[in-house]
Amino acid sequence: MSISTRIEKSLEQAVSRAQVAGSPPRLAAALHYAVFPGGHRIRPQLCLAVARACGDKDPEAASAAAAAIELMHCASLVHDDLPCFDDASIRRGKPSVHVEFGSPLAVLAGDALIVMAFETLTQLATTSPQRMVQLISLVARYVGAPFGIVAGQAWECEERVSLSHYQQAKTGALFVAATSAGALASGADPMQWATLGGKIGEAYQVADDLRDVLCDEAELGKPIGQDATRLRPNAAAQLGIKGAKQHLEELVHGAVNAVPDCPGKDELRAIIEAQTRQFVPKQLATLAA
Amino acid sequence: MSISTRIEKSLEQAVSRAQVAGSPPRLAAALHYAVFPGGHRIRPQLCLAVARACGDKDPEAASAAAAAIELMHCASLVHDDLPCFDDASIRRGKPSVHVEFGSPLAVLAGDALIVMAFETLTQLATTSPQRMVQLISLVARYVGAPFGIVAGQAWECEERVSLSHYQQAKTGALFVAATSAGALASGADPMQWATLGGKIGEAYQVADDLRDVLCDEAELGKPIGQDATRLRPNAAAQLGIKGAKQHLEELVHGAVNAVPDCPGKDELRAIIEAQTRQFVPKQLATLAA
Repeated sequence: MSISTRIEKSLEQAVSRAQVAGSPPRLAAALHYAVFPGGHRIRPQLCLAVARACGDKDPEAASAAAAAIELMHCASLVHDDLPCFDDASIRRGKPSVHVEFGSPLAVLAGDALIVMAFETLTQLATTSPQRMVQLISLVARYVGAPFGIVAGQAWECEERVSLSHYQQAKTGALFVAATSAGALASGADPMQWATLGGKIGEAYQVADDLRDVLCDEAELGKPIGQDATRLRPNAAAQLGIKGAKQHLEELVHGAVNAVPDCPGKDELRAIIEAQTRQFVPKQLATLAA
Repeated sequence: MSISTRIEKSLEQAVSRAQVAGSPPRLAAALHYAVFPGGHRIRPQLCLAVARACGDKDPEAASAAAAAIELMHCASLVHDDLPCFDDASIRRGKPSVHVEFGSPLAVLAGDALIVMAFETLTQLATTSPQRMVQLISLVARYVGAPFGIVAGQAWECEERVSLSHYQQAKTGALFVAATSAGALASGADPMQWATLGGKIGEAYQVADDLRDVLCDEAELGKPIGQDATRLRPNAAAQLGIKGAKQHLEELVHGAVNAVPDCPGKDELRAIIEAQTRQFVPKQLATLAA
């Protein structure tokens, strides 16, 4: 089964548990809408690519971890798009959840997705109880406070921002969760895989900064110029477009070199190189040509 | 150690994990503010009372479960008070979290509290791994979709409301979680304890409906008359005050009789009778006198 199929299947299983008789139908619809159709599913792709590179010793655990991480990502998108944050009216090329269902259901859908992510991991209780415990702790650490994506978003509410904590938590955390959880699911040491996730997360952030400056709204599937509007740090604004592009290339190079020894090392390096290349806005390819 | 001390100590431990260097300080402050000082801590009190009645065989598991349930309750209060829901400006007699810290931090504090609740349970990984797995599943079931408190709140966003699903999920779910988790932590069968939680939850809902009609804002610590304003079902409006009071007494009686056989049955029945009596607004005592 392809990695993409595994991801969609795991997500379908998770979301379907809320689509039953007795469930409030609009919440059930909002949950499905928030998860499908997805974006590039970069984080779960990375999680499963790492799990495979480490031998894919527990495919169910890896798929559950990948789905849990993507559900957390979807929850953060739904909440970040709310009027009190980015007030973003489009996401993944369609009306954002609060535009389609209203803010109350958007708040609740985000909450339910967080719980659903943990529930997805509890499905491993009979087959891999010990691994499940570690995965739940790991996912919680990279989502909550003090260092997860929720804390990352909270840095935007501080007067004095610790830039490294902000970026590591807001974007980096779920990438670190993805590589660490993928390794953990295959019995490898998750600590050894954290650096790789951090570097890919940093590269993704720089690419995202470039897209925010270079792309148009239709291509991006969400509002552009948000960083300038929200006075958020942006690598393209700080380093210039060429400078940011060079920084991105260095980060990708660093990520490829950070892949720890594992049975599928070469293949994983190629995957990471190909995937991070997809981060780069096509306008930059033209710029380089 | 008294039940109250155990609860506060467990909650302090949980919240303190977010109060470290590198944590966004206003989020950390909002998390503490959302949890302390607490209300009556009815749900964790109930959880620990049941655990004790069943022999308190794993006090750490019971305390963690009680704290997790209270953290979920606090998360739901923070989100329910938001302008897009109840727009409640006071809670527990002080400005609600979004008034004190702004809506963005209120959304994030709620999210972080949900994650913190699960993290609190993961602390049992080394001492009670199997119990931990069951407690995480149980708490998730009574918080998320389709039947938890998030789903309960979502029923308020539906045009056609299933009243029984609404009330069971919105108020009942965390009471069922409290009795079931308390039993589970002491090695008893959680299923046998669900009915008791459901009955206490129903009694609490009727009492809450009475308070919404009878109390003044200073006494209640939150805005009054919310059900009429929000067109929510209210037992006092439906049955009249005397009718609702009688219904409440029947429910309390039913709850006391629903306590399953256990070593501390008589003591637990007395505790439940005393605690549910506290639900009753003092205006009603005068009415009866």
